[in-house]
Parts: sequence; C-alpha cells; structure tokens
Amino acid sequence: MKLSFNTWAYSSFPSWLPAYPLEETIKRLARIGYDGIEIGAWSPHAFPETTSPARRAEIKRVLDGEGIVLSSMLPAPPGNNVASPVPEERAYAVRQYKLIADLCAEWGGSTLLYIPGWVVFGTTRKQAWEWSREALQQIADHCEPLGIVLAIEPTSYDSNLIDTAEHAIELMDEVGRDNVKLMFDTFHVLYRREVMTDYVYRMGKDLRHVHISAEERMPPGYGRGDFVAVMEALKEIEFDGFATLEIGFDHRGVEPDWFAKEAFRFLKPLV
Amino acid sequence: MKLSFNTWAYSSFPSWLPAYPLEETIKRLARIGYDGIEIGAWSPHAFPETTSPARRAEIKRVLDGEGIVLSSMLPAPPGNNVASPVPEERAYAVRQYKLIADLCAEWGGSTLLYIPGWVVFGTTRKQAWEWSREALQQIADHCEPLGIVLAIEPTSYDSNLIDTAEHAIELMDEVGRDNVKLMFDTFHVLYRREVMTDYVYRMGKDLRHVHISAEERMPPGYGRGDFVAVMEALKEIEFDGFATLEIGFDHRGVEPDWFAKEAFRFLKPLV
Amino acid sequence: MKLSFNTWAYSSFPSWLPAYPLEETIKRLARIGYDGIEIGAWSPHAFPETTSPARRAEIKRVLDGEGIVLSSMLPAPPGNNVASPVPEERAYAVRQYKLIADLCAEWGGSTLLYIPGWVVFGTTRKQAWEWSREALQQIADHCEPLGIVLAIEPTSYDSNLIDTAEHAIELMDEVGRDNVKLMFDTFHVLYRREVMTDYVYRMGKDLRHVHISAEERMPPGYGRGDFVAVMEALKEIEFDGFATLEIGFDHRGVEPDWFAKEAFRFLKPLV
Amino acid sequence: MKLSFNTWAYSSFPSWLPAYPLEETIKRLARIGYDGIEIGAWSPHAFPETTSPARRAEIKRVLDGEGIVLSSMLPAPPGNNVASPVPEERAYAVRQYKLIADLCAEWGGSTLLYIPGWVVFGTTRKQAWEWSREALQQIADHCEPLGIVLAIEPTSYDSNLIDTAEHAIELMDEVGRDNVKLMFDTFHVLYRREVMTDYVYRMGKDLRHVHISAEERMPPGYGRGDFVAVMEALKEIEFDGFATLEIGFDHRGVEPDWFAKEAFRFLKPLV
Repeated sequence: MKLSFNTWAYSSFPSWLPAYPLEETIKRLARIGYDGIEIGAWSPHAFPETTSPARRAEIKRVLDGEGIVLSSMLPAPPGNNVASPVPEERAYAVRQYKLIADLCAEWGGSTLLYIPGWVVFGTTRKQAWEWSREALQQIADHCEPLGIVLAIEPTSYDSNLIDTAEHAIELMDEVGRDNVKLMFDTFHVLYRREVMTDYVYRMGKDLRHVHISAEERMPPGYGRGDFVAVMEALKEIEFDGFATLEIGFDHRGVEPDWFAKEAFRFLKPLV
Repeated sequence: MKLSFNTWAYSSFPSWLPAYPLEETIKRLARIGYDGIEIGAWSPHAFPETTSPARRAEIKRVLDGEGIVLSSMLPAPPGNNVASPVPEERAYAVRQYKLIADLCAEWGGSTLLYIPGWVVFGTTRKQAWEWSREALQQIADHCEPLGIVLAIEPTSYDSNLIDTAEHAIELMDEVGRDNVKLMFDTFHVLYRREVMTDYVYRMGKDLRHVHISAEERMPPGYGRGDFVAVMEALKEIEFDGFATLEIGFDHRGVEPDWFAKEAFRFLKPLV
Repeated sequence: MKLSFNTWAYSSFPSWLPAYPLEETIKRLARIGYDGIEIGAWSPHAFPETTSPARRAEIKRVLDGEGIVLSSMLPAPPGNNVASPVPEERAYAVRQYKLIADLCAEWGGSTLLYIPGWVVFGTTRKQAWEWSREALQQIADHCEPLGIVLAIEPTSYDSNLIDTAEHAIELMDEVGRDNVKLMFDTFHVLYRREVMTDYVYRMGKDLRHVHISAEERMPPGYGRGDFVAVMEALKEIEFDGFATLEIGFDHRGVEPDWFAKEAFRFLKPLV
Repeated sequence: MKLSFNTWAYSSFPSWLPAYPLEETIKRLARIGYDGIEIGAWSPHAFPETTSPARRAEIKRVLDGEGIVLSSMLPAPPGNNVASPVPEERAYAVRQYKLIADLCAEWGGSTLLYIPGWVVFGTTRKQAWEWSREALQQIADHCEPLGIVLAIEPTSYDSNLIDTAEHAIELMDEVGRDNVKLMFDTFHVLYRREVMTDYVYRMGKDLRHVHISAEERMPPGYGRGDFVAVMEALKEIEFDGFATLEIGFDHRGVEPDWFAKEAFRFLKPLV
C-alpha cells in the first residue's frame, strides 16, 4: 500500500483559492514524502482541453524528477454528470472522461475515478442508472487499450444515485468489464454513519482505490472515525493500491500543506 | 427596477443537488412572480457547448410563454479564471465568455457578468490584473455588436483581485469601453464589512446590475444587513436594472423555491 | 387532507418514557383537534400479541367516542427487518405485518406503513432487496381482502436499502400490486438534504401517506424546511390522505402534548 | 475478573445499523481478546422465537471454536416492561425472560440481567413495584433449575422505578431468592452524578455483574469518570464476575470494533 495526496486543496476546485500551479503542487507533495499524487482535472492543473502537449511533457518531467508517481486522476464538473437528462451533457461527460484517460495514461497512471452522476428532478433513478451504466461502458471501452482501470465511487454526501458499497458493486457487476472496479471515500461513509471497515471487506479484491478523509474533510485523527482500523483492514485484504488523502479542499481558508503534512504524519507509520 | 432570480440554486453548481431542468426552473420563478431570470451557464442549464440549437429555441419559447425575461447571464468554472498563469486557460475562459454572450443575445438578454479572476500562487497581482484587463477588452469587443453590456463584479469572499468597488471602477476606467459597466453583490460587501449603500452611491450611473444576498446566501431579512436601505438607495439613484437574488446555492440541503419565495415576499413591496 | 398524530411520543418506543396508555393518548389527541391517529404497534399500545379481543373492542369504543379515526398503523422492531439474513426473522416480520394489518382493519384503518428493512453486514443489497420485495408481496396478498393499502417508506436516516423516493417507486413498480403505494417522511428528506416538495410531485397520485417532521423530530416551523410549501404542494396534487406528525419521540425529556399542540397550531391553518 | 463485551453495538438495537450476524460478532470480539460476550436478545442475534434449534447449535459451535464464553444475556423491548399496566404485556415480558433463560443455559451461560421495568402514566409506583417483584419471582422460579442467576439493574437514565443501588437492593431483599442478585451500569451512575465505587462497595458480595460505560456510551477513558478506581474497587471486593462493556450502541454512526478495541486497550491492564 502506498500513500497519495489529491490536488483539489491546491487547485481552484471547488473554492477558487488557495491555488497553486501543478508543478509547485507536485514538488510540495513529493517533498513531504508522498509516493503518489492524484491529479484532479481542474484549473489550473489538468483540464484536458487547456493542457497543451508542451505542458504535458513538462509535467511528466517534473513528476519523474521528483520521484513521485501519478496514482490516479478524476474529473470535476461541468461535464461529469453522466446521468444528466440533457443528452449533449452526457456526451460531453463521456468525452471528458476519455480525454482525462488519455492524459492519465500519458503521465503513467492506470487508475481513473468514475463519479456515477446524480438524478436531476424529473428523471427517474432507473433511467439515470441506465445512462450512467451506458456511459461507464463507453468509457471502459476507451480505457481498456490504455491499460486504465475505472474505479466507481459512491458519493452519498453529494449525490443520489450510487450512495453505498452495494450500489457500486451492482453497477460494476452489471457492466461486467475487467477494467471496472471499485473505490470508496471514507468521508462519504462517515456521512452515512456506516462503518468504514465494512467497505474494505465488502469491496475486497475489487477494491482498486481508497480516499481517506475524516469528517469535514479533515485529516485522519481529527473527529470521528477509526482510521487505524481502516489501515489494518486494508493490509488484511492485501490492498496494494493507493490510500489517497482527499482533504482540505471544501472551503477557502485552509493551508493545503498543513493538511498534507498532518495526514502523512498520521498514516505513514500505519502503512 | 425589476426583480430577478439567479439559477444556481436550481442547478448543479456548486452543489450537485438539488438540480432542476432549466424549463422547470423558468416556470417556477415565473409563477412566483419574478420579472426576470439570471441564467448561470452550468449543467444542466446553459453550458454553451452542450446547449444545442433545438434546445436554445425551446428555452426561448418557454421564456416567452411564461412572460419572464432574461435579466443576465454569467459563467462558472472552469474557464473563468481570466487571470490564470496558464495561457491556454485564459484563452479558454475568454472563449467561454464569448459563447455565453452569443447565447445571452439569442435569448434576448443584454447583460453579462464579468468575474475578473483570481491570483494563483506564483503570479503577481499586477500581472493578473493585466491578464484580466486584456481578457475583458477582448470579450467587450465580441459583445459590442451583440448589444451586450459587461458588468464587472467585485468578489472579495472568493477571490483576491477585484475585491471592492474601487477596484472594479479602476478596471472599468482602464478598459474604457461603453459596454463595460459595474455591478456589486451585497454578499461580498457584507463579508468585507463595508456599507452596502456606499456601493450604490459610488457606482451610481455606472451601476448596471445588483446581486442581493444576505450573509450565508440567505434571503434579505435574515441576519445582518439593511436591505430596505439598499432598495431605497437604488430608487434614489434611479437604478432601472435588475435587483437579482443570488442566494440559496452554496450547499445541498436547501429548498430553492423557499429562497425564491421568501426573497420575493421581502423585496416586492420595496421595488 | 386531514391531520393525524403518531403515537410513538406517547409510547415506550424507542425511549421507554414518557409513556401513556393508548386510551389516554387517543383522548389527548382528539381534544387537541386531530382528525386521525397513527398507532404504532408497540408497548403499551398495540403490539398484536398482547392486545386481547376485549382490549381491541375497548379501544375501538374510545376511538369512536372521541370522534377520531385510525389514519394508519406501523410496526416497530423486533420483527420488522424483512431483509434480515436470518430466515426465521424474515418470517417473523411478515407475520407481524399480517397481525398488525388485522388489527388495523378491526379498528377501521386502511393504511399500513411498510418499512422495507435494512442490509445487514454480509448480505448483498441485491439480496436484501429481493427479500424485501418477497415480503411485501406476501403482506400485500394478506392485506388485499382487508381493504388495506401498504405505503412504502424511504428511511435514509436509519437504513440503507430504500433511501429515496426513486428507490421506493422502483420497489412499488416491481411488486405491481394495486394496494402497494408510497409515502415519505420529511425528516428523512431533510436528513438527505433533498427538497421536500420534490417528493410530493414525484410520488404524485401514488402518494398514500405523509409523515411531517422537522429536523431532530421537531414540529414544523422549527429549524430548516419549508413546510408551507409542502402543504401547498400536497393541495396542488389533490392529496386527500393524512398528513401525520411523527415527532417528539426520539429521546426522553420531551413533553408529547407540547409537540402535538405546537404542530397542530402550525399546520391547521394550512390544511 | 474477566472482560466481556455486549452485542448491542453489533445488532439492530436500538439503531438498526450497523448490524452484523451473531457469528461475525463472536469472531470479532474473540479476536480482540475478550474472555466473554454478553448477547442481547435482539435481531439479528438471539431473539428466542426466531432462533431455530439448528442456529442455536451452530452458535454454540462458534462460541466454543473461538474460545469465548457467554458471560450473560439480556432482553430488549417489547416484552420487557414487567411493570406495564396491560396484563398481557406483563405476561409477555415474563415469557420472554423465560425463553431467554433457556437460550442462555443452552449456550452455557449463567447470568441473566433483569430490567425491572418502568412506570407508565396512570400507574402508581407502588403498583409498578409490585408487578415487577411478582414478575421477578416467576422468572427466578424458572431460572433456578437452569442454574441461572438474575442480576437486577438500576436504569435511572431510561426508567423511573429502580434507579439506584438502594432500590435494587430493596427489590432483591423483598424477593429473597438465592438466584436473584445485583448489578450496576456505570453509565446510569454517571448520569445520576453518583460515585461509581460507592456502588461496588454497597453491592459487595451480592454484585453479580457490572456494565462499564463512560458518558454517552463512550469507552472508559473518554469524558468523566474514574474507571481505574472502579477496577481497583472491584478487585478489592474480590469480584470474580464479568466487567462487561455496554457501549457504542446508542446511535448509528459508530464503528463497533473501535469501541471494543479501545475499551479493551484501556481495561485489560487493569484486570
């Protein structure tokens, strides 16, 4: 198991500030000691249409030079509601996923998070589910030759379609592709007042990726949640992916480095 | 002076949910009694690249049928940091503004909000200012033949470039175009602990648009702020634009209709 | 539309105290002005196996004498996890529902709430769903000749199987019986930070019953939630069932009458 | 003195979730190191009427295989208000106790907790006391040949009949049976702002069982209460029963393993 840190806290998503260029972000995380970096496709970091070939090459050089690997990538809205009632939006979302997959492969990554979308008023859940499944199949087809695995993420706090481990597993089973697996974010599990280790055991061998976050996007060790148990359960199932911190990004007024250092201090001895 | 309501609360920005199709949103706001609607360019409403010609025509029919006018439009990220250190992002932002301006004109609107961007770590404020001014000039050139006026918005709560009335006025003066004017949002003024009516008097005849919001994006009448005084000051300077409510959108767990009704109930007698 | 009050606050569920005999509870609610009473099958009120024929007749006399009708009934654990991995527990749960249905019919009621159960660790959601559907079908068969309609309730705060309107609708559609309809509890909608009126419109003609509760089981008007809008939406869809208060029961240290009176004061003018 | 852990946190009482099958619960507690397990008779664990002979045998095998003993059992409502004004409910409660006693003996246990009930509105405390005493006598008669001892528990936080050590001792003395003894739960003592060690010394040689819980059902060491002193007092009176943790069960949103591990870590060195 390796440790990675998600870039939202250093980007303009969802709060515009603070924001650091991607090069700066990579260097800071590598210096703290992280094995990997999860790059969100968002200004000013890696929105595919605004990341030129020259910039892509430069970022790759920085990653290699700092000895840190790309653990994973993920999109941000607009364009990621694969279950939108507007067909053009679904198509745009699928296209964004494909563009991000290309970028991910170019930077040496092999994991792309799949946010299954949400049900807009007037759409049935059943219909939204079908749209999400179709989108996932198309994206999986595109990812397969790139060697990229998609990890479905339940997001109960934000959405209303894939809210639990069971929902994600059902979607994975329906899609039935070798490169469609699972992930979970402890933040959403805590929000639903479920048990984090239940997710580890239930997802088991299909668990590709993990997001670590305490309540209110705080580092593990702050507030509720037994993160020692989570790390032990991950070792028990021989999880060899990235435990990725997705913290400190939900409002302005945070210092990203503090979050990266504090979480590293807590988790490093447990890996 | 007329009343308008901003669509964020009914869209997937910034919280994914609740979300209503644009047609539904228009009908609800018209039924409550609003004269105008401010449409944010965001899923599932009016992101230019995913709003097809057929859909544009349909939305126009709904607006006309409901007897409600388009008071204004505005973009949402990505693509709106006109001061990004990444040149491709600045170009993308400018292009988005132009696409939104086209859509705004097509729907009969004549006001487009200008969010002047923010300073990313490693950029000087002076440099960001120049990039923002250049972007504004290019967008203004595109808007002029469309009959669209740009309204510069100080956004102290979220950004770090144009934070006050004075900043916005300096930028307007530097650009020096007839179709570049001003606006302010009471939410940001309250955050800066300034006086709301000061903004009315200072912007005066250049005031093109107003955002009304109490603290925490609550309707006027909740919490701090003398909104009766704001409305009286607007009448005093013979403001004939739209007082637009931009409220109830910053987190999930709100009922958009409640915000629209409660604000209307408070403001209608004051117009 | 009529008003009803749920008996939990006056019973030993889930907090043992305060507790009032059922006769006393009926008289108090009738005196306050309620049209109906929702009786929970729980000590010391209406647990079927401990409610003798003589007591059933006596309760019916009290109901008739006070001029208040039985709006609905519902079970409480044990015996209501129709999705338990233990087959004997599922059978026990189904049997309890049938016994409560008999009692409900005997007291002149025609609505029985269906709590779809929850997923225990080690069970798949898909399997739990099937068990719940099978139970519902068996119970519906039993209820049909009694003239009793089952109302499926999404319970996101407590469970992990039927959490939203869409889930309940899918289950109703799968079962496909005329006497299986829907209900929702505003408490759970608020917990999920969804919009209460969305539930009214989505459930529409299939909406059989409504539970009204503000956050923390407070009366409408306390805390978050536009209950005026809920009542207006119910009138708009011509809902003619019972708006039932299910409040004030989640902990000791409440005065049930205060909840019953305060909610009545708020809602009566809106019916 | 040995350590035991109560199963509520792993069952559907009183919060429906999280919930684990009894086999899973036994294995987890044995792995952590507990000598004993206190099994609550509640879904999905050991409700007598839904625990088949085959399942009883299987549970016994799991207990033996894991090397953990049954420290004690206890009922949960309905059926446990032995002081209900409804005679059928009192009879049902007594019957439940007898069924649980049978199950307890079958699994090798010799301690059954006695919850003395509570006073419903309209009943005098004197009358409730008499009903509780009569129930206790009947249950004691049934338990005697099974080798099971009843331990009366004062439950001030939840009830209004047996609230203190003195109340429990009076009831024990009135009943006057060799197999009716005492217990106390530190949670209730803390709630009453009494001194925990006072209970140890006052109950003395009649102390059969102890529940350990800090305030808000937290593990010892969290919040108020000197649990080191409690353990020392228990050793001083040569208590040789089970110090049983009854924690982490009063609301959803807890991780049962964390409670079991954290309490074990604190208490093991003190036994």
